[in-house]
Amino acid sequence: MEFRREEDSIGEKYVPKEVYYGVQSLRGYENFRISGLDVNENFIKDLALVKKACAIANLESKQLNEKIAKAIIEACDEVCNGKLIDQFIIDPIQGGAGTSMNMNMNEIIANRANEILGYEKGKKFPVHPNDHVNKGQSTNDVIPTAASITTYRLLDEYIKEIERLEKALLKKGVEFTPIIKMGRTEMQDAVPISLGSEFKAFAKAIGRDVKRLEISKKRLKEVNLGGTAIGTGITANESYIKSVAIILSDLLGYDIHQSEDLIDATQNLDKFSEISSNLKVCAVNISKLAGDLILMSSGPRTGIGEIKLPAKQNGSSIMPGKVNPVMPELMKQISYQVIGNDLTITLAVQAGQLELNAFCPIIIFNLYQSITILTNGVKTFIDNCIVDIEANKERCRELVERSVGTVTALIPVIGYEKSADIAKKALKTGKSIKEVIKEECDFSESEINKILNIEKMGE
Amino acid sequence: MEFRREEDSIGEKYVPKEVYYGVQSLRGYENFRISGLDVNENFIKDLALVKKACAIANLESKQLNEKIAKAIIEACDEVCNGKLIDQFIIDPIQGGAGTSMNMNMNEIIANRANEILGYEKGKKFPVHPNDHVNKGQSTNDVIPTAASITTYRLLDEYIKEIERLEKALLKKGVEFTPIIKMGRTEMQDAVPISLGSEFKAFAKAIGRDVKRLEISKKRLKEVNLGGTAIGTGITANESYIKSVAIILSDLLGYDIHQSEDLIDATQNLDKFSEISSNLKVCAVNISKLAGDLILMSSGPRTGIGEIKLPAKQNGSSIMPGKVNPVMPELMKQISYQVIGNDLTITLAVQAGQLELNAFCPIIIFNLYQSITILTNGVKTFIDNCIVDIEANKERCRELVERSVGTVTALIPVIGYEKSADIAKKALKTGKSIKEVIKEECDFSESEINKILNIEKMGE
Amino acid sequence: MEFRREEDSIGEKYVPKEVYYGVQSLRGYENFRISGLDVNENFIKDLALVKKACAIANLESKQLNEKIAKAIIEACDEVCNGKLIDQFIIDPIQGGAGTSMNMNMNEIIANRANEILGYEKGKKFPVHPNDHVNKGQSTNDVIPTAASITTYRLLDEYIKEIERLEKALLKKGVEFTPIIKMGRTEMQDAVPISLGSEFKAFAKAIGRDVKRLEISKKRLKEVNLGGTAIGTGITANESYIKSVAIILSDLLGYDIHQSEDLIDATQNLDKFSEISSNLKVCAVNISKLAGDLILMSSGPRTGIGEIKLPAKQNGSSIMPGKVNPVMPELMKQISYQVIGNDLTITLAVQAGQLELNAFCPIIIFNLYQSITILTNGVKTFIDNCIVDIEANKERCRELVERSVGTVTALIPVIGYEKSADIAKKALKTGKSIKEVIKEECDFSESEINKILNIEKMGE
Amino acid sequence: MEFRREEDSIGEKYVPKEVYYGVQSLRGYENFRISGLDVNENFIKDLALVKKACAIANLESKQLNEKIAKAIIEACDEVCNGKLIDQFIIDPIQGGAGTSMNMNMNEIIANRANEILGYEKGKKFPVHPNDHVNKGQSTNDVIPTAASITTYRLLDEYIKEIERLEKALLKKGVEFTPIIKMGRTEMQDAVPISLGSEFKAFAKAIGRDVKRLEISKKRLKEVNLGGTAIGTGITANESYIKSVAIILSDLLGYDIHQSEDLIDATQNLDKFSEISSNLKVCAVNISKLAGDLILMSSGPRTGIGEIKLPAKQNGSSIMPGKVNPVMPELMKQISYQVIGNDLTITLAVQAGQLELNAFCPIIIFNLYQSITILTNGVKTFIDNCIVDIEANKERCRELVERSVGTVTALIPVIGYEKSADIAKKALKTGKSIKEVIKEECDFSESEINKILNIEKMGE
Repeated sequence: MEFRREEDSIGEKYVPKEVYYGVQSLRGYENFRISGLDVNENFIKDLALVKKACAIANLESKQLNEKIAKAIIEACDEVCNGKLIDQFIIDPIQGGAGTSMNMNMNEIIANRANEILGYEKGKKFPVHPNDHVNKGQSTNDVIPTAASITTYRLLDEYIKEIERLEKALLKKGVEFTPIIKMGRTEMQDAVPISLGSEFKAFAKAIGRDVKRLEISKKRLKEVNLGGTAIGTGITANESYIKSVAIILSDLLGYDIHQSEDLIDATQNLDKFSEISSNLKVCAVNISKLAGDLILMSSGPRTGIGEIKLPAKQNGSSIMPGKVNPVMPELMKQISYQVIGNDLTITLAVQAGQLELNAFCPIIIFNLYQSITILTNGVKTFIDNCIVDIEANKERCRELVERSVGTVTALIPVIGYEKSADIAKKALKTGKSIKEVIKEECDFSESEINKILNIEKMGE
Repeated sequence: MEFRREEDSIGEKYVPKEVYYGVQSLRGYENFRISGLDVNENFIKDLALVKKACAIANLESKQLNEKIAKAIIEACDEVCNGKLIDQFIIDPIQGGAGTSMNMNMNEIIANRANEILGYEKGKKFPVHPNDHVNKGQSTNDVIPTAASITTYRLLDEYIKEIERLEKALLKKGVEFTPIIKMGRTEMQDAVPISLGSEFKAFAKAIGRDVKRLEISKKRLKEVNLGGTAIGTGITANESYIKSVAIILSDLLGYDIHQSEDLIDATQNLDKFSEISSNLKVCAVNISKLAGDLILMSSGPRTGIGEIKLPAKQNGSSIMPGKVNPVMPELMKQISYQVIGNDLTITLAVQAGQLELNAFCPIIIFNLYQSITILTNGVKTFIDNCIVDIEANKERCRELVERSVGTVTALIPVIGYEKSADIAKKALKTGKSIKEVIKEECDFSESEINKILNIEKMGE
Repeated sequence: MEFRREEDSIGEKYVPKEVYYGVQSLRGYENFRISGLDVNENFIKDLALVKKACAIANLESKQLNEKIAKAIIEACDEVCNGKLIDQFIIDPIQGGAGTSMNMNMNEIIANRANEILGYEKGKKFPVHPNDHVNKGQSTNDVIPTAASITTYRLLDEYIKEIERLEKALLKKGVEFTPIIKMGRTEMQDAVPISLGSEFKAFAKAIGRDVKRLEISKKRLKEVNLGGTAIGTGITANESYIKSVAIILSDLLGYDIHQSEDLIDATQNLDKFSEISSNLKVCAVNISKLAGDLILMSSGPRTGIGEIKLPAKQNGSSIMPGKVNPVMPELMKQISYQVIGNDLTITLAVQAGQLELNAFCPIIIFNLYQSITILTNGVKTFIDNCIVDIEANKERCRELVERSVGTVTALIPVIGYEKSADIAKKALKTGKSIKEVIKEECDFSESEINKILNIEKMGE
Repeated sequence: MEFRREEDSIGEKYVPKEVYYGVQSLRGYENFRISGLDVNENFIKDLALVKKACAIANLESKQLNEKIAKAIIEACDEVCNGKLIDQFIIDPIQGGAGTSMNMNMNEIIANRANEILGYEKGKKFPVHPNDHVNKGQSTNDVIPTAASITTYRLLDEYIKEIERLEKALLKKGVEFTPIIKMGRTEMQDAVPISLGSEFKAFAKAIGRDVKRLEISKKRLKEVNLGGTAIGTGITANESYIKSVAIILSDLLGYDIHQSEDLIDATQNLDKFSEISSNLKVCAVNISKLAGDLILMSSGPRTGIGEIKLPAKQNGSSIMPGKVNPVMPELMKQISYQVIGNDLTITLAVQAGQLELNAFCPIIIFNLYQSITILTNGVKTFIDNCIVDIEANKERCRELVERSVGTVTALIPVIGYEKSADIAKKALKTGKSIKEVIKEECDFSESEINKILNIEKMGE
């Protein structure tokens, strides 16, 4: 392999001749070989888009000449289109508030722009990674800005999926409405309920998650671009500062605007904590829902067995015929991951010091993972589980009829204590509630049937 | 001590003759001697208010006769006014979804109502704890309803305090606007900033917390009262169900309404998770702010020393004259507690099973503690710290002038690499940036002063 | 009320005449009205014991004269015996690393000692809170030392309870050994198991918790007493430093020794994080065990119903005859609290800065709560639940026989795929495994019985 | 691409002709496209090793014939040597307790063994994935066993790194012993300390982590291999059960043994929670240490500046000459990730139900990430930071001399209150402690020098 010599404030290094990244990227790469993973590709593309917006704003504000600006813009377009992605060599877990990622981008764009202009890579001429690509910018404004855009993009996709989940659950709710089953509180037989009502309740909870995330998503439209190092806009031209967010909005196709207080927006990352928290609340709902599916589908012969989840794979390498609730289990695990990631984000957001939160890299690493696994998880959960859930109608009916919980309907008629006596007698003797009522109370058959109308109870 | 004999489904027990609670309360007390603490008094009063609303609704729906209803209402009023609070003997950490707390209330109200009517305690006659006081109700709707009301009440008070905090910070922000100090990113000298801007940024972040909590507070207006055991309203009269929330709203003085889906509202407690999460995000902002105050006030002679916190107590039992940042430390610890409590709430909310979340007791125990300590903490934080913070103007100026970070302002003029050389030379030689610029660049004194205008930079 | 005037570095204050605490305590009280709770009483007594040991060491090292030392010792003894506890007025949630608690103790002891010597309270003469009671000490060594002693004491009690739990579970394991029931993995019917084996497995897990906590407990024997402010022992006499831990050991009745590195022991509180983590792991085991009891006792008629938990209280205010698994629910909630508290402790321990971790107050507040609620919880869990669990032998047998999971025993004989066919046919037709084997395979009745011997399988 | 048709209990699927995985792997792949990541390669190899041990044990117990066993063993060896790794297509986040990973392995080994024997892939003949490769095994014993082995392996490597860290810190401690600097408690000037003592204290804390992890590592030698589905050993031959762990020990080169209670070992995964907790405690120590390095190296001109971290990369894309504490920042972020991962593991371990914890996949996914990033992080932390830390001796001395904390040394001589007066006067007047003592006390110059001997104080 051939190398080229490059230099920075720290000293010199030899960089493979053909690569687009430069000496600073290489230092970042060597310093941070931590997770072995790559930075989220959406984020790389969004950062390139931010760089493009900056170049346009600098051009329009006459901070860059046309030749250089156009070359930068062309290079950014290439990255936005998925080229040169392999030149991003920084580990997502890294020190330094994202400077390594930003310099990796600056070096790639500068080298590619120089190449476009017919110059050699590695010479920082005529396009310089700091003086031109990073003009009027700082890691501390471009990285959080790109981070917000990517979060917006991913969140948008996720919201679509949970809206789909809400609908799929609601559809099952409607389908299962006529099926009356036993309700359980604290896992003890309670009173009848429609199986449909349970799925409608799941849908309702997910619907709240949609609303919560929609509200939080809006905060991502506020960025600190233009604030440069600490929000004061040092080095940035005034006309550039005014136009750059508008230009970025045009490129994105939705409105983005500068925060009213760029200093605050640079040092306080609570919006990411808010979004992660709302993902956590969503995970909490999903975990509860998944747990209920596991319980209701337990069996097939020694559990509750009120519903049947579709068999998507063999459940066991040793127990023949076993089919496991792998989809709800998957969702539980994803929920646990999201809750854990939220803690990491909490720790990182609260650890900001003075003019900057230096922990943006770990924040977005966890946030993107949370959204991604939730999105992918919900997708397969809907398509490979929810839509094909079947009710075991006979089993549902059988359990309601066997239960003593229906005695509750007697309370308004004979009071709590007498009802309790009947329940106890039924449990002790093994008789049905109906039988014991006949023995103990002075009701006609039709009165009893009216009182014990389980369809009515389950409504 | 004299005792009276009482009986329930489990068996008989002897209850002290003079007490208002009964056999079921006593079982709950004996089963759960866990934390040694009391249930939040606001919650007890709010539960009594819910009971009162139910009695009125039952009276109006002809489910209770006037004599009994009025006695119940009178007894509820007494509890709302702070009487009989010592009769609530259940530990806040308890099994059973709050049934013990609900029965404790039912027994107290029934005994007191019977006493009002001229009957003996412990006889459940003429007023019966289940058949009359609890009429048309279940633990599973009255407890979460009272829980929501108390949370609303406490949150309301907290929001007032953080609005006060926001204003106090903003006021300091205005006061400190003319003071230019060194900005720091990653704890390294960056570029100048106004001390006022830092306090305004704190205020801005707290302002977002206000908004977040305002949104979440609204969800607390939706309750599951009328749903009884599992949300189907079993045992409750239809006319009662329709009126009870309206009556409760009248008593409260703000609008409360039944959830559209009472089944969902009974089993999914994500609203509490949402509120706790938003408290957590607020704690994250407070922790960051508190940390910054600790840093900026570090010293007095070997730290940063840009601000001075008011001395509220001796800092040390051994080091004379030492004054510590006890208020920010307090707030950091409160933040840690709130973050830990949020985890407990997360765990409890996701653990709901089928028709009920049985873990309401631990959820409200933590939620109330979080709001209470935040409210009390923020109060003392404002009054004993924020309002009396003083700036050390000379120190701020001295540090800015000593710093090399001001070299950043040169970038638009001479580029990144040359600026870096100047910074390195200054650091190496110990000279000021200005001196090195004079040596290295061809600027006039007035040009240099214009470039290095720190007031301009810090704006 | 009459007042006395007192003064400290901050200024003057009026203190109620009859109280033993002084001006500094009062400041701490007023600054920190946060939780409304009291500091753990064990901790107060242990801190008094530490003060006593220090006074003895100072006396022996001739740092205190006999009159003063003896008065201090007498006052300490009174606190150790439960007197003057109401004079401790500091909220457990407080800023300042425990200085307020330490000064509260110093002032009480000084005032009481002066009273013993025939002098007035509030005059700091002849016994001075700092110069005599706190002699050779700092908040930063006495507070963590007392914290360790109290933790040791509480942990000791807790370990006894979980040893008792281990034994109770084991006893049930032995009792239930002959009862074969269906094993379930992922809540799906798996293969038979002895109910006794399940309880023995619970016991085994708890046994590991005992061992983990025993190891961690030992670390509490290492204290930083003698290190004073930052571990360098400044102000403390050398002979005092050498003897104080030995004297404290004598008073305690078990060996305590100074850390090899007092500087480390003052700033790094990882031992508390370790203990809390091990409590968390124990909570994890308890949560799993509690969850299993809830599952196995679900019913009585529409759940699994393999075991019956003792009825300790009515389960419902509305559903007659309902008995809920309140004890396992209690333990789950305690587990969630302990896990949340561990997070608070984690946050506080990692936030130490330089020579001190200032967050000792919130650490011990959570640690003591965790141990206390676990101890009280496990106590009632054993006595009100575990020891009275009954097996439903018939139900266990019925479910095993109904299940198809027993087909697994055929694998070594006819292979996985053929076995799977049999399982599927049984599920499809509703027949028992035995019936299908008869139809599909060429085995004699006795061969089948031998293969399907569920007692053998469950061993 | 050509395909082959395969069938399982669920139905048929077309599998690419040339691949080694089969229909069940493909289902797992399609069901779980969640994280886009791969299962840890060490784990794949260790699972192959477990499969090899099982094949040998089955051969020796005459459960497999020699031809089949040898082909399986050869195939396993290939995987252990890094071949066929790309055939593992299951996402690490997956439902089903690891069945997909186990069947992926069974199918690969069976297909490769058949190929070795001259047969076609996809025919399950003569080597069958379930009946031969998985013989006497279940997902529920082989997956946790391989998980333990990999954890042991990774932990071993990590322990080596933190031992290296301990030594590196200790070496710095020795080097910096003569340098006296100001100690700070609660970020306020306290009393002098040797810079060396600080590094020795860091080393001491890390040394405790080594010990904690060593103890936990031992638990990983206990496995549940031989227990099959639920720990009862169903389908496994007795002689196989007795020998398989011994054979595995031989292959591993260290002693591994079966758990005394295989049922417990199958359903209770607290050992993973314990290890993760100890990693968390280690992260807590590292976070504190990293934070201190950030504080002490703050500056260069407006912070504390007592030490200088090596410059490993440019600190800023905009601020020339800025060098940031990227290595400690990296370590802080890794710590936050480890703490978050521990929560995910906690959630998963406590969620086990009855005979199995189905959440092993998410547990090991997080555990391996934690150990890996800690190992890689500590490596670069030592080599790129710790070993090249330099002290700024002059700055350390300057700050001590400027400070008033040294007044503490006066307490044994003139008492707390008089000392406090001197401190206050010094602070007020800006004079040094020495000057004020001269004015206020009656000491000779040499007496003062003796009292204020900072070298002595810092020892």
